[in-house]
Amino acid sequence: MKRVFIEEIKASEEEVLLKGWVHKINDLGKIIFVKLRDKSGIAQLVCTKEQIEDIRLETAIEVKGKVKENKKAPNGIEVEVNEIKVISKTYYEKLPFEINSFKDKTALETQLDHRTIALRRPKIRAIFKVQSEIETAFKDFLKNKKFEQIHTAKIIDSSTEGGSEMFTINYFDRRAFLAQSPQFYKQMMVGAGFERVFEVGHAYRAELHNTWRHLNEYVSLDVEMGFIKDEFELMNLEEEFINYLYKHLKNTCKKELEIYEIELTDEVKIPRITLKEAQEIILEKYDKQSPIGNIDAQGEVLISKYVKEKYNSDYVFLTKYPVAKRPLYTMPDEIDNTLTKSFDLIFDGLEITTGGQRINDYFMIKENIIKFGLKPEDFEFYTETFKYGMPPHGGFAIGLERLTMKILKLSNIREATLVPRDMKRLTP
Amino acid sequence: MKRVFIEEIKASEEEVLLKGWVHKINDLGKIIFVKLRDKSGIAQLVCTKEQIEDIRLETAIEVKGKVKENKKAPNGIEVEVNEIKVISKTYYEKLPFEINSFKDKTALETQLDHRTIALRRPKIRAIFKVQSEIETAFKDFLKNKKFEQIHTAKIIDSSTEGGSEMFTINYFDRRAFLAQSPQFYKQMMVGAGFERVFEVGHAYRAELHNTWRHLNEYVSLDVEMGFIKDEFELMNLEEEFINYLYKHLKNTCKKELEIYEIELTDEVKIPRITLKEAQEIILEKYDKQSPIGNIDAQGEVLISKYVKEKYNSDYVFLTKYPVAKRPLYTMPDEIDNTLTKSFDLIFDGLEITTGGQRINDYFMIKENIIKFGLKPEDFEFYTETFKYGMPPHGGFAIGLERLTMKILKLSNIREATLVPRDMKRLTP
Repeated sequence: MKRVFIEEIKASEEEVLLKGWVHKINDLGKIIFVKLRDKSGIAQLVCTKEQIEDIRLETAIEVKGKVKENKKAPNGIEVEVNEIKVISKTYYEKLPFEINSFKDKTALETQLDHRTIALRRPKIRAIFKVQSEIETAFKDFLKNKKFEQIHTAKIIDSSTEGGSEMFTINYFDRRAFLAQSPQFYKQMMVGAGFERVFEVGHAYRAELHNTWRHLNEYVSLDVEMGFIKDEFELMNLEEEFINYLYKHLKNTCKKELEIYEIELTDEVKIPRITLKEAQEIILEKYDKQSPIGNIDAQGEVLISKYVKEKYNSDYVFLTKYPVAKRPLYTMPDEIDNTLTKSFDLIFDGLEITTGGQRINDYFMIKENIIKFGLKPEDFEFYTETFKYGMPPHGGFAIGLERLTMKILKLSNIREATLVPRDMKRLTP
Repeated sequence: MKRVFIEEIKASEEEVLLKGWVHKINDLGKIIFVKLRDKSGIAQLVCTKEQIEDIRLETAIEVKGKVKENKKAPNGIEVEVNEIKVISKTYYEKLPFEINSFKDKTALETQLDHRTIALRRPKIRAIFKVQSEIETAFKDFLKNKKFEQIHTAKIIDSSTEGGSEMFTINYFDRRAFLAQSPQFYKQMMVGAGFERVFEVGHAYRAELHNTWRHLNEYVSLDVEMGFIKDEFELMNLEEEFINYLYKHLKNTCKKELEIYEIELTDEVKIPRITLKEAQEIILEKYDKQSPIGNIDAQGEVLISKYVKEKYNSDYVFLTKYPVAKRPLYTMPDEIDNTLTKSFDLIFDGLEITTGGQRINDYFMIKENIIKFGLKPEDFEFYTETFKYGMPPHGGFAIGLERLTMKILKLSNIREATLVPRDMKRLTP
């Protein structure tokens, strides 16, 4: 007999074969209700005393039984058990925390210590269903637009993007680094003729932050596109992606969005405000001073509050960051060359994207490397392709965990990471 | 006017806007043929002397012109140019090697030194189109079977899978390692309730090999599945995937397969031979002794030769490896407990997969850890979930670069890696 997933069970008198874990046992004396959990859902089993002799919470079992309608049961059906077989025993004395209770208030750190136990809760696992569908949407959207998926090296030779925040590796007889981003490689691949590329891969930041929004290892959704007109084309692309994503999630994650009581809007239209304007709004409306050439975490929250009230938008693009605050590859603005053709995307009080048009002229990038106090010869692996007709290009990167967190309104980025890595956590 | 990709051009008298690189210039005096290359193909432009004044090989240009039929032109059409605009200049004195010649015999190392220049050749870039479609097929195939994509940590605390072949990282004030595989995590996620997971991510091996088939950083296509019957279910799954993949590549990479003169078979039926039988065949038919409990690189070639001749198969599963040669999590065979429920998949003379059923009982895995001379407490992050009903499970991993290489019959794995990392190479 073929195993059926719980979400596929249909009321019929036929026998089904189910597999899963014992989620809950409700002993009413003569009759015993057992909740069986598999990856797709939870089913009510009707058992006898004898049938449940060898089972306890979390025992992995195989069940044969008949599906019957029962309006009082979850989903309106229950399974009258003919046979239960223990597939895998349990060896615990006590669960580290309840799995079958929604009211559980276990501290996040404890849940992370016992990550695989916490994930047995359907509500926790739902986060990663949404996350995997975000990734699917990202790929489908970009593939439809002729972007090609690439994988670039994470072990790199030089700490070209700022050495202090990089992890060092002992690479045979020398020192290497873990890449902070695929920035240089994705640009190089545009120049190499791919024109449009995306990458889903880990990025590493040795930042000395331990906050609700920082991870030292995270998944970056990177996009880079050649032959662009300007940075607004990139913002349009990202806005279109967010709309595509919302549609995709509504189709594929209905149940998961319901668990988190999330209603995604039908159309996302993202206002674009220059950084300078944003700083002024934050100062004038909320009496909060921003750091020079940027806004801080509190500023991100305030500007989001402002656009929510004014435009009913959860998102806002901040544009035209100053040259001094952007990396060396950022294209300066034509009108005011103290500014750049760059942007950040703030989503509900949190920066989830940095992007912009890049410098594409060989001499201009070389000069900028010198201006930044660095040696052009250290960047030859990167600048070489600029000698051979590097088209105007740009891109952006979205932090997968940040986007997941904000869509589901989670309060800590670790909740949106299967096995998070921070300054203190290397296990599990 | 909207830019049109070259592969989308249709013969019509209307004007089109093309963008790309100057691939070839053929000056016939009065008339000049320029080959324009974009990510999708190559088009013949008909230009005048004046129009090409500012262009040379690899200049990035924008072209407006009318599409005309010309039976002598590639694809039967050419573009009569009205206007050429240089988008991005070149600054080279000499190309490191020819881009527009198929006959080029530049050494692989030189091509890798100038990776982004080599990739401008459509033939080289075609490899990565195929690679990205392998990845797409892998995901589509598994998602259809309710597998969920996961991302697990690559920075890990302990060198649990064999320390000498792991890269060490300086992680804040302590030492950490780069994961050799997501093996433990993917098993843990099966137990955590995902049941069926896959991961596409980098794996790191600090092996002191510098061969045509080794990389120190590679992309691993990992699969893990719960509630399985035995390892043969996993082999069936992989066989089904290979068939799915071949169909997918025939649909999506027709041009690329043609470039490499690859004809994929309509049905892949993979013979299964025990390791012992394979060793005997290699000895009896080819007079070649195999190492104890394994076959070596030459043995992989010979057994492939044998199954090709006998079964007309490019693939062969080798099964039942001895306990002594498999990792500590491998499930022993019920009939002969010196053997395991494991397998390798050999494709055209190269191992591309290792897989098998895993131990799923808590005490059994603990005992095995001790048998291997290791400390159970170092593995608690992994074994914890085994206490709570760990179902029978198993999986396999496919090396993405190896699979790409073998499908396209390339001779060196570096050809199937955008930016390869080996003992000597950390750039570009």
